[in-house]
Amino acid sequence: MPVFISTLDDGFDAAFNALLSAKREEAADVDAAVAAIIEDVRTRGDAALIELTERFDRLRLTPETLAFTPEEIDAQCARVGAQERAALELAAERIRAYHERQMPGDERWRDATGAELGWRWTAVGAAGLYVPGGLASYPSSVLMNAIPAKVAGVERLVVACPTPGGAVNPLVLLAARLSGVDVVYRIGGAQAIAALAYGTQTISAVDKITGPGNAYVAAAKRRVFGRVGIDMIAGPSEILVIADRENDPDWIALDLLAQAEHDESAQSILITDDADFGRSVMRAVDARLDTLERRAIASASWRDHGAVIVVRDMDEAVALSDRIAPEHLELCVADPDALAARIRHAGAIFLGRWTPEAIGDYVGGPNHVLPTARSARFSSGLSVMDFLKRTTIARMTPGALAAIGPAAECLAGSESLQAHGLSVRARLDHLNDEGTA
Amino acid sequence: MPVFISTLDDGFDAAFNALLSAKREEAADVDAAVAAIIEDVRTRGDAALIELTERFDRLRLTPETLAFTPEEIDAQCARVGAQERAALELAAERIRAYHERQMPGDERWRDATGAELGWRWTAVGAAGLYVPGGLASYPSSVLMNAIPAKVAGVERLVVACPTPGGAVNPLVLLAARLSGVDVVYRIGGAQAIAALAYGTQTISAVDKITGPGNAYVAAAKRRVFGRVGIDMIAGPSEILVIADRENDPDWIALDLLAQAEHDESAQSILITDDADFGRSVMRAVDARLDTLERRAIASASWRDHGAVIVVRDMDEAVALSDRIAPEHLELCVADPDALAARIRHAGAIFLGRWTPEAIGDYVGGPNHVLPTARSARFSSGLSVMDFLKRTTIARMTPGALAAIGPAAECLAGSESLQAHGLSVRARLDHLNDEGTA
Repeated sequence: MPVFISTLDDGFDAAFNALLSAKREEAADVDAAVAAIIEDVRTRGDAALIELTERFDRLRLTPETLAFTPEEIDAQCARVGAQERAALELAAERIRAYHERQMPGDERWRDATGAELGWRWTAVGAAGLYVPGGLASYPSSVLMNAIPAKVAGVERLVVACPTPGGAVNPLVLLAARLSGVDVVYRIGGAQAIAALAYGTQTISAVDKITGPGNAYVAAAKRRVFGRVGIDMIAGPSEILVIADRENDPDWIALDLLAQAEHDESAQSILITDDADFGRSVMRAVDARLDTLERRAIASASWRDHGAVIVVRDMDEAVALSDRIAPEHLELCVADPDALAARIRHAGAIFLGRWTPEAIGDYVGGPNHVLPTARSARFSSGLSVMDFLKRTTIARMTPGALAAIGPAAECLAGSESLQAHGLSVRARLDHLNDEGTA
Repeated sequence: MPVFISTLDDGFDAAFNALLSAKREEAADVDAAVAAIIEDVRTRGDAALIELTERFDRLRLTPETLAFTPEEIDAQCARVGAQERAALELAAERIRAYHERQMPGDERWRDATGAELGWRWTAVGAAGLYVPGGLASYPSSVLMNAIPAKVAGVERLVVACPTPGGAVNPLVLLAARLSGVDVVYRIGGAQAIAALAYGTQTISAVDKITGPGNAYVAAAKRRVFGRVGIDMIAGPSEILVIADRENDPDWIALDLLAQAEHDESAQSILITDDADFGRSVMRAVDARLDTLERRAIASASWRDHGAVIVVRDMDEAVALSDRIAPEHLELCVADPDALAARIRHAGAIFLGRWTPEAIGDYVGGPNHVLPTARSARFSSGLSVMDFLKRTTIARMTPGALAAIGPAAECLAGSESLQAHGLSVRARLDHLNDEGTA
């Protein structure tokens, strides 16, 4: 049974803390296996990659067939129906338009001492995007990872996507093509991450790896972090819906179930200021659950992690929401902007009754790769910034150095870093000599 | 002996690759010890923290003396001399002015469908800054970490700084005060990181932990990552100086030695298009080395990791620089802007002969916490962005949902996420019913 609690209950704090701290996913201990796989690919390159792909994906590759040929991609893309193609194109266009606005600007200015300061942004040279095979092979994730990289200006963007037993998802290939991906490799698991991080005879190493994956992929990303950049390690997905009684319980139930159907570890929480409305939503969830193809998954998620929380007023809702720091936050209330203005921690906010979270998964425009497990307290969703880095710029003039150099020399002395001070002093002495010459 | 190689040499590629891949630091294997310390603090809180501080720092604390009192900080600050205080104030003011320009703006717009989209930035609620004790206790690092946090709007900013045997660095406390730090705790090591991440009876947990530390601190930060945000795990510091023959060899030598004196794992590299100039710099380094207080450290760094690389022309210098992706890059040439424009990967660039890197360590304005070990290929130095997170915003109208909802429904179907599609469909059906009513 999902939790049904009210802030009026005596045991509310304990129940809410239990909900917050419940572990929804046990990390499988695959670290030793992953370390061995990475070392193998690092040492033996293509040969190891091909052997591991045969073992794990039951697929025999050669260095020549590691990547799809453009003709193979053409053929797969041609299999996609017109409606799906149009939907994918609309999504790509809207995601691109949103992310183009994220491009930060360079800055350069001169301060009162005459020193020139600033920074500039450059793109990561090469990025690798991991796309799971099988059930969780989502074309929408390809768009959400690849388009920000391309908008940022990444020159070489490759995809690694396993094709277990040779099974290919044509929509994934079409999404890769629409996003401007350069090469798609038929590899997966920790061996794919190793190949992207260290390179093989056939595959060039990249600088940054993003994209979701199973426990092996996650462990491999953690291990290669530092050698390359990685995005976040995502936990199970979650939604918090804050809704007043004016909503259709069925709409809210479907929004909760859209999260629950992802996997058994997903979490859906409703906060409402009306207990009767809360109960109506619970009934609506039950009614819809039976009709879903993924009812086994959605039922388990709702039963084990679902919650309806009744609050006295929306002030309480705001406070609880910030403690949850949800990945997705729907505000189904009359004035969602007023409520949103008071929320501090959320990955993405969906405003009003007409904005089901599923819009954000596909065609809204904002990224659907978002911080989970309360990490919205300190981190953000994927963006073009993940594929850019900033170089700071400083240029002293003799006058600027004369103005601020002595302070640097003084502080270097305090830190017992004598050569630091001398590197400033040598230049200042030269200025003084010139001045007195 | 430092490496002296030329791109004209037969073995250049091998020698350069060896330089790039040389491991300068062995990570101590402290992970098991750190895991035990974290678990102890997590379980027993203050009691564990106090015991561990007595063991490692030879200092007996109580819950009441974990933090410095304002009066204790006053007394320590009063010990700082006028010149050092003025230098620290100038540094703080310049760092603040630079970082204030980094504050990103919120965005909100309406697209052609009527959908409202955008994002907004909010500050991390609470941040903890680690400051090492002993030799590497740098007041400049306090400014560089704390000021961006305060500029970002972090409400609660605390410092953890061990005081081994009770030894206090008054400049660290003054830097904390000038930066707006709220509380300074007399704790260090993995136990301090655990206390900041999980909280104790006396210390409230923070959301983000930044700042340098030894192997124990680094391992602890890796372990608590996910529970809280962390900054990068910094490796040994490094500089690349690109200089033509028009420089004073002594100035360049001092710039190289300012890096080398940090620690034996630091690395200083000179690239020049004039072999004779390169040899002059090597002689100047040797001459200066004997005069340095830290000559043992600087000599070891220069001997084991130093390098002078002679190139045919500055085109080669640019290409090699991007392969090094240096933390600090000095361009001591006639037209440093032209050269900088062609560089893609560097943490910070120092333009021209009058900008020794040491200026950037203290008073330049840009942050001195920068990506090491070639990670400038994919990451940036510390900034206000590290203390902010972005929440994306989407608001559909009925018209916007009618325009783009069907595409979302279609893609949800492709991904076998039925409830996703239904959450959109229920709303679309309602619109259709209204339209036909």
